[in-house]
Amino acid sequence: MTMPGQPAKQGPRSLDPHLRRYAARTAGMTASEIRALFAVASRPEVVSLAGGMPHLAALPLESLSAEIGQLVASEGLVALQYGSAHGVPLLREQICDVMALEDIKGHPDDVVVTVGSQMGLDMVTRIFCDPGDVVIAEGPSYVGALGSFTAYQAQVVHVAMDAEGLVPSLLREALEACRQAGKRVKFLYTIPNFHNPAGVTLAVSRRAEILEICRTYGVLVVEDNPYGLLGFDGQTYPALRSMDPDNVVYLGSFSKTFAAGLRVGWVLAPHAVREKLVLAAESATLCPPTLNQMIVSRYLSTQDWKGQIKTYREAYRERRDAAISALEQHMPQGSTWNIPDGGFYVWVTVPEGIDTKAMLPRAVTARVAYASGTGFYADGFGSRQLRISYCYPTPERIREGVRRLANVIEEEMQLAATFGATPGRQLSGPQAPSPDTA
Amino acid sequence: MTMPGQPAKQGPRSLDPHLRRYAARTAGMTASEIRALFAVASRPEVVSLAGGMPHLAALPLESLSAEIGQLVASEGLVALQYGSAHGVPLLREQICDVMALEDIKGHPDDVVVTVGSQMGLDMVTRIFCDPGDVVIAEGPSYVGALGSFTAYQAQVVHVAMDAEGLVPSLLREALEACRQAGKRVKFLYTIPNFHNPAGVTLAVSRRAEILEICRTYGVLVVEDNPYGLLGFDGQTYPALRSMDPDNVVYLGSFSKTFAAGLRVGWVLAPHAVREKLVLAAESATLCPPTLNQMIVSRYLSTQDWKGQIKTYREAYRERRDAAISALEQHMPQGSTWNIPDGGFYVWVTVPEGIDTKAMLPRAVTARVAYASGTGFYADGFGSRQLRISYCYPTPERIREGVRRLANVIEEEMQLAATFGATPGRQLSGPQAPSPDTA
Repeated sequence: MTMPGQPAKQGPRSLDPHLRRYAARTAGMTASEIRALFAVASRPEVVSLAGGMPHLAALPLESLSAEIGQLVASEGLVALQYGSAHGVPLLREQICDVMALEDIKGHPDDVVVTVGSQMGLDMVTRIFCDPGDVVIAEGPSYVGALGSFTAYQAQVVHVAMDAEGLVPSLLREALEACRQAGKRVKFLYTIPNFHNPAGVTLAVSRRAEILEICRTYGVLVVEDNPYGLLGFDGQTYPALRSMDPDNVVYLGSFSKTFAAGLRVGWVLAPHAVREKLVLAAESATLCPPTLNQMIVSRYLSTQDWKGQIKTYREAYRERRDAAISALEQHMPQGSTWNIPDGGFYVWVTVPEGIDTKAMLPRAVTARVAYASGTGFYADGFGSRQLRISYCYPTPERIREGVRRLANVIEEEMQLAATFGATPGRQLSGPQAPSPDTA
Repeated sequence: MTMPGQPAKQGPRSLDPHLRRYAARTAGMTASEIRALFAVASRPEVVSLAGGMPHLAALPLESLSAEIGQLVASEGLVALQYGSAHGVPLLREQICDVMALEDIKGHPDDVVVTVGSQMGLDMVTRIFCDPGDVVIAEGPSYVGALGSFTAYQAQVVHVAMDAEGLVPSLLREALEACRQAGKRVKFLYTIPNFHNPAGVTLAVSRRAEILEICRTYGVLVVEDNPYGLLGFDGQTYPALRSMDPDNVVYLGSFSKTFAAGLRVGWVLAPHAVREKLVLAAESATLCPPTLNQMIVSRYLSTQDWKGQIKTYREAYRERRDAAISALEQHMPQGSTWNIPDGGFYVWVTVPEGIDTKAMLPRAVTARVAYASGTGFYADGFGSRQLRISYCYPTPERIREGVRRLANVIEEEMQLAATFGATPGRQLSGPQAPSPDTA
């Protein structure tokens, strides 16, 4: 028997003496491409179009500081104490008011507060997915969701989007194929509004059809909606949850409409599911931080939160405009992208022959970072795509970043013309549809 | 095919239309006895000796309020923003200073900040436990840990304690039995100091032996130490981690030494394990709340945190004294308990023939709540035991609560004498050793 901690004797992998002890799920845990990039991309000389950090500079820190200080002074004995795994009751009521903006009629009892909507995602996957179960997700999809699905050994089947979001006929095909193959599909994971990373919105005319298809195949819908209130014209869309309360688990978040560092999100679930979620959440963190919930609750009570969302929207629209005009000005022939009307992201397809993952180190050398497309697929697609996040840098920096990116792409094209395509899988093309609309 | 949301047709369980969709692990998720009790026990007329809420009244709320307000005003753009899944670097350094009080030489790189140590526990179980794997735990053990193990479908094997904590010979027997049965034991989960719920501390003379046994059987040690700095005489014990850094994963928390509602805990792990933990944590919550980490960091920098721990210790000693003197004064013959020298809990064995779980509703009617022993065992033991938490109520309330509890027990004994024992499993006795020292 080999003793843990003893010198390695089994070859290169044995650098980790605990290797043989890990659970099967742990083998699938690898650093996301985006995460691996953060350290370099956060150097000040690099324009980072990679991360999804909200533009907090618009927050009224002085009045927040006063409110939070007062909260601790007057209600500290509650705010600093354990709470329930379900969440602070007043906040759960207020969350229902927030959701009403997107036509949702939720009951506070069916809201479970989570440590960011990432935890909601993790909990939903925990209660539904056995290893090998299938989750249907848009292709591309949110990298953090793919991470959670992997952590529970679920298999992701992507369904393509077009300019109007998830394509119903392709969803039906995918579900039928899974049924034929005897696979257990647990849910459709979808980001209907201002998609991450694709930037598109599911057409309202498709929503009922998507829901109907999922019902027909007995598949739950997990609706992830962190950006829904960030439509640049103040437009909102009816949530899937508002159209089928019994078959949709809804995930919401204050990360993009207020402050990400508080990590306050929520799940609105059908009643029976909610009970399981509370139990799962209890075993995960006992309770979400009470202080943070009370900060959000107080913020919603005392501050002009709708005005703040409007301020955010305007900041993001200005940045979207900067990104799009720079793309139009600088990007070489053969590049395409969509024009998002809300949210944080533009999804770009680069000219044929370029591999965005292979190109990334050269881009960072040229002082611009982006998220390469492969991180948003569970199956290796996306090598001709990249995500530009315009949420954080100033419009000027965005323009400069896109200019640098365009230069890098041009150089790659010249290299490819001279020496052949850059190394890397070329799985894109017709099989990896991207929601290009430009 | 039954459509979700349709009327129930399959019998009583079909009230939940999503029932057939849950993962196998979800079947094991049931409300803990303690949790089910919180709602009733939190009525003001009930003396709750059930929960483990820290005595926050000792916190300097005014100066905390000022510090936190200042933090938001001056560093809000960082505090309210996403951070890394690993945790705030300065806090991880300070955590190493805290652990040094128990002889641990940790490197900040190997510290992973978690949403309370409950999340640390969940993450450790996530990366190590496949369904069916065995976790060895003291009997009784922390109810939240049992919840996490269940969530990952691990099997818990209890090993008894005596007045000096976990019994090495019984640990060896249990590991040998698992080996003979071909079971994969992943780790020993242990709370060495001021055990929850048993109140005992693992004798220093046993620590090296426990570690040696675990090494011999190739089993990792997960050391959970939320109460280590709460020894009533200011005494501390060398952490298991300090004696075997490569084979111990250490869980720490600020919940009991500062403020539970912030949900800031940590894991100190062997280097290779730490990488997996960061990945697991990222898929669980993206990152722990930045604000909360910075609050703790600032608290450690600017406030007399060691003085605060001393204040807490003194408050808990006074409460322990109240509990013990009331037990001595009121409890009927045939009851036994230990005298903890730190932490939050006294573990009580009631006279034969009484079932603490069956008695609980009658106790709540008599306006006293406790945690019945069965919640702390994965295997049905503990029906003659109960946990008294003396951490939260005032000494006066504790005395009144114990008096009421003693009355209820006496009434139960009279009932039992007249009508026979109360219903419920009687699995206690020699097979379910409890660390009685009184």
